[in-house]
Amino acid sequence: MKALKVGIIGFGTVGTGVYKVLQSFPNIEIKKIAVKNITKKRNIENFDTTLLTQDPYEIVNNPEIDIVIEVAGGVTPTFDILTAAIKNKKHIVTANKELLAKKGSELFQLAKENKVIILYEAAVAGGIPIIMPVKTILCANKITKIAAILNGTTNYILTKMAEKELSYETALKQAQELGYAETDPTGDVEGYDAAYKIAILSTISFNKKVDINKIYREGITKITAQDIKSAKELGYTIKLIAMGQVLENGKIDVRVHPMLVAKKHLLAKVKNATNSIMLTGYPVGDLIFTGAGAGAEPTASSVVGDLLVLASELEASDSPIPQAICNHNEIADQINIGDTYNEYYIAINASNNPGAIGVIGTICGKNNINISTIMQKGTKDDNTAEIVVITERSKEADVQNALKELLKSDCIKNIDNLLRVMN
Amino acid sequence: MKALKVGIIGFGTVGTGVYKVLQSFPNIEIKKIAVKNITKKRNIENFDTTLLTQDPYEIVNNPEIDIVIEVAGGVTPTFDILTAAIKNKKHIVTANKELLAKKGSELFQLAKENKVIILYEAAVAGGIPIIMPVKTILCANKITKIAAILNGTTNYILTKMAEKELSYETALKQAQELGYAETDPTGDVEGYDAAYKIAILSTISFNKKVDINKIYREGITKITAQDIKSAKELGYTIKLIAMGQVLENGKIDVRVHPMLVAKKHLLAKVKNATNSIMLTGYPVGDLIFTGAGAGAEPTASSVVGDLLVLASELEASDSPIPQAICNHNEIADQINIGDTYNEYYIAINASNNPGAIGVIGTICGKNNINISTIMQKGTKDDNTAEIVVITERSKEADVQNALKELLKSDCIKNIDNLLRVMN
Repeated sequence: MKALKVGIIGFGTVGTGVYKVLQSFPNIEIKKIAVKNITKKRNIENFDTTLLTQDPYEIVNNPEIDIVIEVAGGVTPTFDILTAAIKNKKHIVTANKELLAKKGSELFQLAKENKVIILYEAAVAGGIPIIMPVKTILCANKITKIAAILNGTTNYILTKMAEKELSYETALKQAQELGYAETDPTGDVEGYDAAYKIAILSTISFNKKVDINKIYREGITKITAQDIKSAKELGYTIKLIAMGQVLENGKIDVRVHPMLVAKKHLLAKVKNATNSIMLTGYPVGDLIFTGAGAGAEPTASSVVGDLLVLASELEASDSPIPQAICNHNEIADQINIGDTYNEYYIAINASNNPGAIGVIGTICGKNNINISTIMQKGTKDDNTAEIVVITERSKEADVQNALKELLKSDCIKNIDNLLRVMN
Repeated sequence: MKALKVGIIGFGTVGTGVYKVLQSFPNIEIKKIAVKNITKKRNIENFDTTLLTQDPYEIVNNPEIDIVIEVAGGVTPTFDILTAAIKNKKHIVTANKELLAKKGSELFQLAKENKVIILYEAAVAGGIPIIMPVKTILCANKITKIAAILNGTTNYILTKMAEKELSYETALKQAQELGYAETDPTGDVEGYDAAYKIAILSTISFNKKVDINKIYREGITKITAQDIKSAKELGYTIKLIAMGQVLENGKIDVRVHPMLVAKKHLLAKVKNATNSIMLTGYPVGDLIFTGAGAGAEPTASSVVGDLLVLASELEASDSPIPQAICNHNEIADQINIGDTYNEYYIAINASNNPGAIGVIGTICGKNNINISTIMQKGTKDDNTAEIVVITERSKEADVQNALKELLKSDCIKNIDNLLRVMN
């Protein structure tokens, strides 16, 4: 392999992991590393601090550098920095899911015009090989469905809530103490991170540009210990699921929300910070990829993997990896959540009187919703009852209407939660 | 993509599947299909029978054909046919695990000399992407361990034995009736098929040529309903596991045998004809790939995937996919089964007297074997007792010695089974 010169932008956990892994590949020379704080102590043996700069443009404007590794994250100023790099004919390897979900089309178009490649295996599911397989060895397939656990933090929190019967707040606090969740956990617990990833993965799987702004997104902050307990009794576990599917009419349904997942489903068995992607296509059928979705080392596996593929191909040809080129010419026709069909779990707080079940049954029926299970979970001190309903496949808009009507009824005190169900 | 001309050798289930999938790719033109019996009725709409020939050399000697797809199987005469194809500068896409396991080195060397590529995603685990990911996106990793379910037939039989408490013979018969097992099931149930696959996968994962003849191989024919029942009571399920690992001393341990797999292990949850590969490497950690390991459509996904990658790369360059080139320069130093260390399940038929347990304990102790569990499974009509022992990690040679000694003891009637354990 011919020697390649790279610059690294961002030198946090992932950047440091990439640096360490690259020490085993003498043909890859790190020319420069752009950091926020040049004086910060780095925990690396024999580290040459003259590699560091605070100016990323020293990398993207450096004519000696062939490939820019971007592991800084964020859109501003990263978009401008990578735009400059691409215009300077540098190939890009990035782990930046937010940037690709929000600005991917512009970057890929620019890359095409400048005949460079952007590789981003690390942007989705950390160390799990999914982007490259979808673009290469699976390319004979028409992929029609993805259902995935793409956020390790929320899966960790939900696992601990289930295993130790913790509240969301307590599980989050423990996850923060152990470094699984950030001080401001919004990006993870509200589903933003999973939404960026499913936007990227759906786009390459369905060959249509999925708009991040049209992805329905719901986090895990409203999941209660009671929801997890009820789900367990019904044979389910609760997971934050990122899904994408091509409907029979060609429309695309992409969303992120918690789901009750049947215990026998392989995704239900994915615990702690592990990620897992189930992909359905013709002719391959169902495939499941499971592994570490974050962390310095697994992410470095994907970043350096992309880099070595690029290096190897650049050796053979000046226009490498035709299959890695992203075109976002066709725009996905994404449907609204109201138009989706799902099975539902509805947790209802009702007056403890025999009429409540009747009211629920009547209002559901009026809104075309068939109930498959109804379970009363005892009574509370305030003489209300917790009632859990599982519905057959129903239209979301009908369910939302039913919930509004239920709330108008005297005997219904509150809708405690509405979750979708995967069997 | 430029138009490519291909010939297909072999037109059974997989060949027909490949033909059907290729109908969606107008840039791939099928020039010729070599079959055993040209007059056999083919169940394909609007099939052009003039494509058929009984002479595969009409394909490999045809100057118009760029790529040969070989899905005929076997070593004779396939090796000679593919040798001729490579000498005629044709790229090869093959699903032939036996040929690659037995003659891979020679074929890859010849391909290198003739500057052609051999791709073989379909040879291991059917539709699951594993060969291409290991060679491309995972290439930053030092892979140290593979543990896999690579044979769908045996996993189906073992699943049915466990679920329906069937004997091996009954489960095999049912699998044959349903088409999951062949009339002569030897290749599957004696572990040959899994051994070919783990030879190929270990070779590319460890970057050292693994000799198929040095792989310890044991099938599932001796597994009894009682073994499965005992395993279940101890928290295990029995699977045919193909494994490969790099030991600390650099030696390579590759083998195929049934194992008791702890119920919480993800491989224990893989049911019926599904395949699953667990791969451990640095920096990626543990990855698990699960999907259909056989069948016309999943296998066609891999064959056509290889073909499209090759086509796409040939368009960009005359020397495509540098990473796909196999070199078998370094030979793996494979250890014998006697030198491996494992935990063991030993099923012993003993006289129903109090001395038996003592004899077992004494002989195990003398041979450096620590027992972690011992369980007597009631008594039989002939006044013998079934005793099941689970050992701590012990050397295989020590265990074999202990079994010989046990058999010499008056109170030990028989060693009913010896299986290895994966926790």
